[in-house]
Amino acid sequence: MRIGFIGLGTMGLPMAQHLMRAGHSLGAYARRAEALAPLTATGATAFATPGELAAASDVVITMVTATPDVDQVLFASRGVMTGAHRGLLVIDMSTIAPPAAIAFAARLRDAGVAMLDAPVSGGPAGARDAKLTIMAGGSADAFERARPLFESLGTNIFHVGDNGAGQITKACHQLLLLVTAEGVAEALSLAGAAGVDPGLVRQVMMTGIASSRVLDLFGGRMAARQFEPGISVRLYRKDLQIVRDLATSAGVSTPAGEGVAANVQKLVSEGLEREDLAALIKVLEQTATGYRLPTSGD
Amino acid sequence: MRIGFIGLGTMGLPMAQHLMRAGHSLGAYARRAEALAPLTATGATAFATPGELAAASDVVITMVTATPDVDQVLFASRGVMTGAHRGLLVIDMSTIAPPAAIAFAARLRDAGVAMLDAPVSGGPAGARDAKLTIMAGGSADAFERARPLFESLGTNIFHVGDNGAGQITKACHQLLLLVTAEGVAEALSLAGAAGVDPGLVRQVMMTGIASSRVLDLFGGRMAARQFEPGISVRLYRKDLQIVRDLATSAGVSTPAGEGVAANVQKLVSEGLEREDLAALIKVLEQTATGYRLPTSGD
Repeated sequence: MRIGFIGLGTMGLPMAQHLMRAGHSLGAYARRAEALAPLTATGATAFATPGELAAASDVVITMVTATPDVDQVLFASRGVMTGAHRGLLVIDMSTIAPPAAIAFAARLRDAGVAMLDAPVSGGPAGARDAKLTIMAGGSADAFERARPLFESLGTNIFHVGDNGAGQITKACHQLLLLVTAEGVAEALSLAGAAGVDPGLVRQVMMTGIASSRVLDLFGGRMAARQFEPGISVRLYRKDLQIVRDLATSAGVSTPAGEGVAANVQKLVSEGLEREDLAALIKVLEQTATGYRLPTSGD
Repeated sequence: MRIGFIGLGTMGLPMAQHLMRAGHSLGAYARRAEALAPLTATGATAFATPGELAAASDVVITMVTATPDVDQVLFASRGVMTGAHRGLLVIDMSTIAPPAAIAFAARLRDAGVAMLDAPVSGGPAGARDAKLTIMAGGSADAFERARPLFESLGTNIFHVGDNGAGQITKACHQLLLLVTAEGVAEALSLAGAAGVDPGLVRQVMMTGIASSRVLDLFGGRMAARQFEPGISVRLYRKDLQIVRDLATSAGVSTPAGEGVAANVQKLVSEGLEREDLAALIKVLEQTATGYRLPTSGD
């Protein structure tokens, strides 16, 4: 299959490479031409515009940062839309606002082009190891065409509904991820302030009902005081805005989601938006007065 | 070893039975004599008061509901304290307030009796299968004496610090468990209100970074609408009060913890305190207006 790939960042590059290894003919477009080098070195074709890439592809995959980036790549002058042709399938694997995903799909449909929203979970490690979770929204026909590609990228492939359902599922996932991370930050800062080693408390909790991948991953970074850029606060802030807009539209109250949003906002205000999400614990520690555990002699 | 067991509820009874199977001589006390029947039928000795039980035991284990229950069993007239003798070890495996655990240990120490606070995680299934997590606070000497007993009850045994540290660790664990449950309730109610099947979204999230034991257990009950008594809201409400008091003492802000506390309080106000914690999702659904996912034809 001729695949056109747009968005060769930490996630996109290893994904594109997996598709090449699976035997597909890969074309690519990047705003920064040097981003194409690792792909063209192994036989991929560079294109000058998303439109030219689309014209020469059966499937275009976009893996960019945010809603405006997808909008531009698809609909700006020389965008994917200018290369629309019958049979083209566009798969957006970025995390964007569900209403935008629905609107983009409708515009492409008017040009005879099918679209899937297919955001992922698993992070850079999941992309590198082809172990992503992929949650796709769109027609069953489009999903079946995309399935072999998804199977080269991930181990858990889901068709969750019509256009937009993939992004709604991702929003729910990010809400849970962020609230869990906030819970880990609150629990470990409480442990530390109460005089019990947070690393040990994390180890105990990993064996209890409170255990989670977030406790393992972000709790590990909090306990080790590792705040250097990993999966940065900045990206989660974007996701939280998507969650809040969706919750407002649906009339769902998300008090714990609001709690973590307030703490993420504090991190941004303090210039820590490029740190890892584990930095959530710093916000909580700022107010802690400490609690001296009475000792045997008291 | 001669073990005296007090508190033969859903957790305590299978724990006492595991200790008998491990070859220990078991005595027991219960306010309701009929609670003793399953144990005396297999050779345990019934005692009329906690004091008489303590006088005849090397180790007394208490597994009751809350701080006042432990206070009464230990220090009321005919309580464990009246049977205090050199070499007696008291292990409280209930979940109670850390300052109370510290105070109780100090009173027993004055009578020459060692104490451990050793609350657990794992619920009724963990107690039944002897797979509990046990987090113990107290002297290293007391912990080493208790270790063989703990190994008959659980698979993850931790000595986390001095008296009170076990209860502090449990409070952190319950905070994380409850915040995670709130996150699951928020994510699944958002999915439902936005028109994507909550059961499917849970299945997707179980494969992503947001996955957790809470999503598996309570998320499964939420998706299946199973709210009959399991681990009831009432017990978690008690634990939340312990968490809030500790957080206040330590000056740690727990915004997500406050969010779930408010929702638990709503469940109690609505008379749902005997339902399973999965009922958290009902509070959130009350305000949801629903969000109609635009369809292909829109």
